[in-house]
Amino acid sequence: MVESKRVVLIGAGNVATHLGVALQKAGHEVAQVYSRTEASASTLAGRLNVPYTTDLSQLCEEADLYIVSVKDDVLSSLLPIVVKGKEKALFVHTAGSMPMNVWEGIAPRHGVLYPMQTFSKQREMDFSTVSFFVEANEKADLEMLKELASSLGAKVYEANSEQRMSLHVAAVFACNFANHMYALSASLLNKYGMPFESMLPLIDETARKVHQLEPKEAQTGPAVRRDANVMNKHLELLSEEPQLRELYEIISKNIQTI
Amino acid sequence: MVESKRVVLIGAGNVATHLGVALQKAGHEVAQVYSRTEASASTLAGRLNVPYTTDLSQLCEEADLYIVSVKDDVLSSLLPIVVKGKEKALFVHTAGSMPMNVWEGIAPRHGVLYPMQTFSKQREMDFSTVSFFVEANEKADLEMLKELASSLGAKVYEANSEQRMSLHVAAVFACNFANHMYALSASLLNKYGMPFESMLPLIDETARKVHQLEPKEAQTGPAVRRDANVMNKHLELLSEEPQLRELYEIISKNIQTI
Repeated sequence: MVESKRVVLIGAGNVATHLGVALQKAGHEVAQVYSRTEASASTLAGRLNVPYTTDLSQLCEEADLYIVSVKDDVLSSLLPIVVKGKEKALFVHTAGSMPMNVWEGIAPRHGVLYPMQTFSKQREMDFSTVSFFVEANEKADLEMLKELASSLGAKVYEANSEQRMSLHVAAVFACNFANHMYALSASLLNKYGMPFESMLPLIDETARKVHQLEPKEAQTGPAVRRDANVMNKHLELLSEEPQLRELYEIISKNIQTI
Repeated sequence: MVESKRVVLIGAGNVATHLGVALQKAGHEVAQVYSRTEASASTLAGRLNVPYTTDLSQLCEEADLYIVSVKDDVLSSLLPIVVKGKEKALFVHTAGSMPMNVWEGIAPRHGVLYPMQTFSKQREMDFSTVSFFVEANEKADLEMLKELASSLGAKVYEANSEQRMSLHVAAVFACNFANHMYALSASLLNKYGMPFESMLPLIDETARKVHQLEPKEAQTGPAVRRDANVMNKHLELLSEEPQLRELYEIISKNIQTI
């Protein structure tokens, strides 16, 4: 049985929302929600049925953990105000691309709780399908963050700030860019009057395959077969789509050289 | 109950192998297997427990359906020999990028049975997760092909030759190129000592999301948010990886312009 934690959420975006819901489900207490705007703060607070504030100087001071989940470009400027008067608590941010040392000289106990997932407001998030990467400046706090993430059902890994940045970039390729490949596929199918739905089994199997094989071993298609005949036909079909054609050529070449 | 068909498989590669297994499971008869090489022919024939030949002039003449599943570049040259003496049967190929008219003047009854999936010898293929695209020059044969594919548990769509070619290209993006994005992700994680396994939940969710949302709506990440700050950090991390850096820039730009 994991000890229940008293948590304050600073931020009310996708990550904070999904985290808040999951923390409550796992038996933790969300003590308060902060957002810069009344609308966001009250929406999330209403969903969690907890108090909220839009004033950082009014943050609840008796929490175990403060989770800052705001846009990267405002993060650093917020931190001193967030920590003030609560120097005994543990402070973490959730940003993949921000180093842990943004907390240095501000919060004695600090760390990072990075949930690597693609969060959408439209979809429920099952945290048993999320990898968390944790980092902390004190060993006891690292263990606490691991336990907290595990209590949500998540898989937990330790990662230092450089590793977390590499994860963030790797996630752009495996998630954002893979999704863009789906989007390009959808636009082509749409042009030729075929339903995107017909592509879903292939998309699913492509994802399933890399549970079993290294992605490099799982590679199929004309580029890895060096089937110039088929590739030329494809480029011909793409002759009116200069952007798709360019990507087709560059990615195919890349497949052949790594 | 679908009528059982008597089928000859010409070719013994991934597609022919998975098709042969599935046809037998669905109660059809594989009468014979042909492959150019003894090794391939006997391997597949042994697996299906049926006769084989390596001589096209020795093809069984009493089948309902001949399925030609060979490399695109040898397909056309094979067809006249395959059809000779069996002009009453139905002949199909399985190639996404070959038009139906390769059969014209050769086989009076002809068509295409294109299973759109990524086949690996290492993985069992569940045909209930395959979209089939069928085309035939006669209506009755089109219906027969639809029934045959349905009997394997597959989803079946009609597609003319141009649509099939667009599907083939769309599949390169959604499958081959998406898998390459996984491979690039894996190589980065490997460099920084993180397990690729930690990326699988994200890969799965990215695929699941497009069952519910259009890929364009499902797009997340720094490019679509136009978060130049994060993108610059990513490019910095990729400074020693010119190929990844180039792809990162081009795909990000592409995400912002379509």
